[in-house]
Amino acid sequence: MTTDLGNLSLESKDDNCEDDVVDPWNVCSKSKTGIDYDKLISRFGSSKIDKKLISRIQSVTKKPIHHFITRGIFFSHRDLHSILDLYEKGKPFYLYTGRGPSSTSLHIGHLVPFIFTKWLQDVFNVPLVIQLTDDEKYLWKDLKLEEAKKLSIENAKDIIACGFDRKNTFIFSDFQFMGESPSFYANVVRIQKSVTFNQVKGIFGFGDSDVIGKIAFPAVQAAPCMSSTFPFIFGENKVPCLIPCAIDQDPYFRMTRDVAPKLGCHKPALIHSSFLPSLQGSDSKMSASDLNSAIYLTDTPKQIKNKINKYAFSGGQVTVEEHRLKGGDCSVDISYQYLKHFLESDEDLNKIERNYTSGKMLTGELKKILIDLMTSMIQEHQSNRSKITNEDVKEFMTPRKLL
Amino acid sequence: MTTDLGNLSLESKDDNCEDDVVDPWNVCSKSKTGIDYDKLISRFGSSKIDKKLISRIQSVTKKPIHHFITRGIFFSHRDLHSILDLYEKGKPFYLYTGRGPSSTSLHIGHLVPFIFTKWLQDVFNVPLVIQLTDDEKYLWKDLKLEEAKKLSIENAKDIIACGFDRKNTFIFSDFQFMGESPSFYANVVRIQKSVTFNQVKGIFGFGDSDVIGKIAFPAVQAAPCMSSTFPFIFGENKVPCLIPCAIDQDPYFRMTRDVAPKLGCHKPALIHSSFLPSLQGSDSKMSASDLNSAIYLTDTPKQIKNKINKYAFSGGQVTVEEHRLKGGDCSVDISYQYLKHFLESDEDLNKIERNYTSGKMLTGELKKILIDLMTSMIQEHQSNRSKITNEDVKEFMTPRKLL
Repeated sequence: MTTDLGNLSLESKDDNCEDDVVDPWNVCSKSKTGIDYDKLISRFGSSKIDKKLISRIQSVTKKPIHHFITRGIFFSHRDLHSILDLYEKGKPFYLYTGRGPSSTSLHIGHLVPFIFTKWLQDVFNVPLVIQLTDDEKYLWKDLKLEEAKKLSIENAKDIIACGFDRKNTFIFSDFQFMGESPSFYANVVRIQKSVTFNQVKGIFGFGDSDVIGKIAFPAVQAAPCMSSTFPFIFGENKVPCLIPCAIDQDPYFRMTRDVAPKLGCHKPALIHSSFLPSLQGSDSKMSASDLNSAIYLTDTPKQIKNKINKYAFSGGQVTVEEHRLKGGDCSVDISYQYLKHFLESDEDLNKIERNYTSGKMLTGELKKILIDLMTSMIQEHQSNRSKITNEDVKEFMTPRKLL
Repeated sequence: MTTDLGNLSLESKDDNCEDDVVDPWNVCSKSKTGIDYDKLISRFGSSKIDKKLISRIQSVTKKPIHHFITRGIFFSHRDLHSILDLYEKGKPFYLYTGRGPSSTSLHIGHLVPFIFTKWLQDVFNVPLVIQLTDDEKYLWKDLKLEEAKKLSIENAKDIIACGFDRKNTFIFSDFQFMGESPSFYANVVRIQKSVTFNQVKGIFGFGDSDVIGKIAFPAVQAAPCMSSTFPFIFGENKVPCLIPCAIDQDPYFRMTRDVAPKLGCHKPALIHSSFLPSLQGSDSKMSASDLNSAIYLTDTPKQIKNKINKYAFSGGQVTVEEHRLKGGDCSVDISYQYLKHFLESDEDLNKIERNYTSGKMLTGELKKILIDLMTSMIQEHQSNRSKITNEDVKEFMTPRKLL
C-alpha cells in the first residue's frame, strides 16, 4: 500500500493547497480553464492516453475510435495495454463501472462514462457489470435506506436506456445483491482483511469521527473488480476487468490494485474520464444539488433552452463588434465544451471551433447549436427510458449467466 | 454512546492495570480465585442477578430454576425484568446467542451458554437465533475464508446436539446468511451509519493499524438484535430480544443498546455468564489453542481421565494426613468448580463440598466423581452429535418461519 497510493484526499482537503481538488466526494478547481489533468496524472501516478496508445486501440479493435478518446475526454489509464493484449489473444476480460444513485434524475455529465462503456461493450463484446452503490449514498447522505434502494431502481432505468446489451450486462444494487449471492460479502470481507484504517485514512482522508460504515465501504466498491464476486457469470475463472470511470473514482481502485495481488487476483485496469464542467464554468463539476448547474435527463426542451441561454458560461466578447474583431475563447466557453463532448462529427466540431474563434460565429449561434443537440439527445433518452419496464429492470438486475 | 459505554478494552490492554482483563478477545485474571465478577458488574454497568430477581424468575416461569442461576454462573444482566414483564403479559420476545467458530472441536466451557439457552427456550418457548461469526474468525485469525465457513458447519452440529427445538431455532453463519437475505446487510449498514471509529476505539480498543474489517465487524454482531434482520421469522413486527452470553461479549451489546433507540429498535436485554476456568486454575479461561487446558467434546474417556487426574488444579492438601486435618479449598479446586457447573443435584454438590472441605473426601475421590460425570456427559454429547446429519444442519440453517 506504499507505492501505489498517494495522499490525495488529505492534500485536497487543505483549503490553502494550490492543487485542484479531486476525490470521490469533491471535485473543483480554482482555474477558469478547469482542472489541470496533466498534473493530476502525475499526482495519481496513472498514464496519459497518448497518440501511440490511440493508434494501438484503433489497430487492435479495427473499429473507428470513440471521439471521447480522440478529444481527450477519456485521457488517462492504468494497464490498458494489458487489456488490449488480452483482446488480441482472444482471452476474456470484463467491464466494470458504476454509479452512486444520489438523485432521481441523472444529468448529462453522468452519461459520459455510460456512453463510453456502451461503446467499449460494443467494440469488445464482453460482459459488463454495473454497480449501484446505494449503500454508499445511504452512508454519506441524509437519506433513508429505503429511499436509497428506490433511487437504485430509478437510476437503473436511465442506465438501461443507454442501450446496453441485455444479454451481456448485469446491473446490481449493493443492498439487493449483497443478499442474493454469498460471493459478494465474501470478497468484501477478504478485502477488508487486507486494508487497515491507516491506509483508508491516507487514501480517502477518513478521520476518527467518521462512521465505521464509511471506513468499511471502499471494500464494497473494490469487490466487483474480482471476477469471483460473480460466479454465475465467470464460474471459477479468474477474469481481469477494465474499469471506465471518472478520475475522481481512482482512489478506490488504487487501493484495489494494491490489494489484488495479495488476494491472488488481477489488478483492475482503468480508463479515466475528465469531468463535464457545470454550466457556470470549467472551475467546477456539475452538481446534482444545484438544478441550474446542469442539464438533467428529465429537462423539457424549454428548460434546456433557458438553462443554456441563461447560464452557459460564454467565451465570447461583450459586444457583437468586439466579438467579430477578437473572436471567442473555446477553452472556457461551456457551450463549446459541451459540443466537444456530445457532437459526434469531428468535421462539424472543427468548423464551429474555427468560426467561433475567428468571431464569425456569435455566442447566440453557438448556443443554438448546443440547444438543438441537447434537446434531441435528451428527448431520445426520455423516449428510450419511457419504454423501460420494471420487468426490464428485473431482468438486468437478476444474477445470471451472461454471454 | 456516552453513558452506556465504558473504556474497557483500552484499560484492559494496559499491562500494569490492577483489574481483570475481560473483552471479546482476552479474558484473564491475576487472582487465584479468578475474575472478580462483582467488580466487573460495576465496571460494565450491568446489574447483579440477586435473590429477589431469582424469586421473580421462578414465580413468573412457574418452573424449577436452572442451577446456572442459583449457583451464580449466570450472575449479571441488563433489562431482564422487562423480558419477564413481556412474558407475563404474553407478549413476544426472542433469544439470540452465538459463537465464533474457531476450532473443529468445542470444549465444555463453550457448552455453558448453549445449555442455558436451551433451558431458556424450553421454559419460555420462544424463537431462538444463533449466529456463527465465521467472518469474525476469518478477520481475527490466520484462517482461510473457506476454512472459516467449514468450521461453522462443524460447530453447528455440536450446537444442534445440545437439543434445540428445530421448529423454533434458526442457526446462521454470517458468510452464508449475508448472501441469503438483504435484511441482514441492510441492518448492518444501518448500524455502521450510527457508530463512529472513535466509538469502536473506545469500546473495543481498535487502533489505526487495525484492518477495516475488524473496525466494521461489531455491526455484524449487533444486527441480529434487530428482529427486522429476520423478516421470515418476525414479519414486520418489532420484537425485543434477550441475549444469553458470556460476559466478555457484553461490549458488543453495550454498543448495540446505545444505537438501538436511534434506529427505532428495542435495546437488547442480556443475561451474562462467568467463565468456566481452565483445568490449570481459575486465573485463566479455557483456551481452544491449548489442548490440555480444557476438556473437549471430542475427548475419549481415557483423555478425560488423564486430563483431570494430571491437570485439574487441586485445592487439596499435599499429604493425605494434612488433607484429613485441614480439608480442601473448594474455591480454587477446579474439579469442584466443574462439578458446580455440571452436576445438577444440589444435594449431591452440597455433600461433596462439605466432605471435601472437612477433609473427609480426598482429591482423588473428588476427581473420580468429575471423571465419571464428564465421561457420561461427553459420551452422551458424542452420541447425539453422531446422529446429526448434513440434512439436519441444512434444516436448522435455512431461513424460514419459526413457531
